[in-house]
Amino acid sequence: MRVMFQQELGELQERLVEVSELVTEAISKATNAFSESNVALAEEVIESDIRIDERALSLDELAIQILARQQPVARDLRIAVSALRISSSLERMGDMAEHIAQLTRYRFPEKVIAKGLRGTFRKMGELDVEVAETLTKLLKTQNLKHADKIRDLDDDIDDLHLSVFDKVLGETWGGTPVDTVDATLASRYHERFADHAVNIAKKVKYLTTGEWASDGTGPVEVQN
Amino acid sequence: MRVMFQQELGELQERLVEVSELVTEAISKATNAFSESNVALAEEVIESDIRIDERALSLDELAIQILARQQPVARDLRIAVSALRISSSLERMGDMAEHIAQLTRYRFPEKVIAKGLRGTFRKMGELDVEVAETLTKLLKTQNLKHADKIRDLDDDIDDLHLSVFDKVLGETWGGTPVDTVDATLASRYHERFADHAVNIAKKVKYLTTGEWASDGTGPVEVQN
Repeated sequence: MRVMFQQELGELQERLVEVSELVTEAISKATNAFSESNVALAEEVIESDIRIDERALSLDELAIQILARQQPVARDLRIAVSALRISSSLERMGDMAEHIAQLTRYRFPEKVIAKGLRGTFRKMGELDVEVAETLTKLLKTQNLKHADKIRDLDDDIDDLHLSVFDKVLGETWGGTPVDTVDATLASRYHERFADHAVNIAKKVKYLTTGEWASDGTGPVEVQN
Repeated sequence: MRVMFQQELGELQERLVEVSELVTEAISKATNAFSESNVALAEEVIESDIRIDERALSLDELAIQILARQQPVARDLRIAVSALRISSSLERMGDMAEHIAQLTRYRFPEKVIAKGLRGTFRKMGELDVEVAETLTKLLKTQNLKHADKIRDLDDDIDDLHLSVFDKVLGETWGGTPVDTVDATLASRYHERFADHAVNIAKKVKYLTTGEWASDGTGPVEVQN
């Protein structure tokens, strides 16, 4: 029974890695589509989001089956419950990639982003891809150096997010209302993508060390 | 044991109702603060969000304790797991109320919303409050007429959300970039608030009837 259980927890982990890889592919394509106004690539992201949703759903079913069949306690229980929460965050990361792709499609053949902000969004996109790649490594290895890296990358993304608002609310902004709306939404999607990864990293850290980040959220973190 | 278990599930339900009431108070104050540029009321919402987070966290801990102690199966297991998901959605609804309050504070003493959109946002705010009130009733009674009402209210909010974009992207929009950014973010927060309620309503509906909405999301819904 015990061996079976460990196998099942191992499968949960593999499935989380798999969804994280799909999310990495989605954000990589979405941010490229966004930079290059590549509507075909954007369509690909939009169409494949359903696959992320399905894989996350099937992972949830497995976690619930494990809860029902194995009736785990203590740390094993927390692993199974955390898998549900991590899957939910991964699914939302996929949605953010889809939203970025949708913005690209709405504005095509125009570029989504006004000239003065293209460098900023290219950088935010690269950082989001790096966040996703690092998250996959974290889920694969549980090596907490990856969790720390995600936190650092998120800090950089937050700085860029604030700089977008400085720009569009500054004296020199000559963008149209469409430019302003797009920059606002795009910046929020990029920033939320990384936030979800930070939440996942905190959960993995807690499961690995039993220690929770000192941000007052406690052991069972409220989803952010 | 069985009686104890039913009592514990009953307590989970009461706690969900309690958090839903806190969320109703938050969105009611936040949307009023937003309409009237009432910064004191906005501060109140921002300060009290931590209480929603704490109550949701404590609810999660209880659900996990129930899973560990009672080792429920079948429908009871799904109720305990659903409580975790519902609590997470409620916590996010509280965050949306907080974000609306924060926008009010950032712009004070200016009004957040440009003249031409004030009526639209007042209506969106009223609908969000009605969504929250209806959600509390649904969690209290499990009467599915409330779930249907939430769905209808959400449709109306989505229409208003689209009308905000029509306005700020239309020929007659004379707003500043600040107006455009604020309208974009505020509209998204109002709309997401209701989306989370729709997700909760779907979960309650599934738990009550075993039937899932025919939107392809399946019995264990992916969080939206």
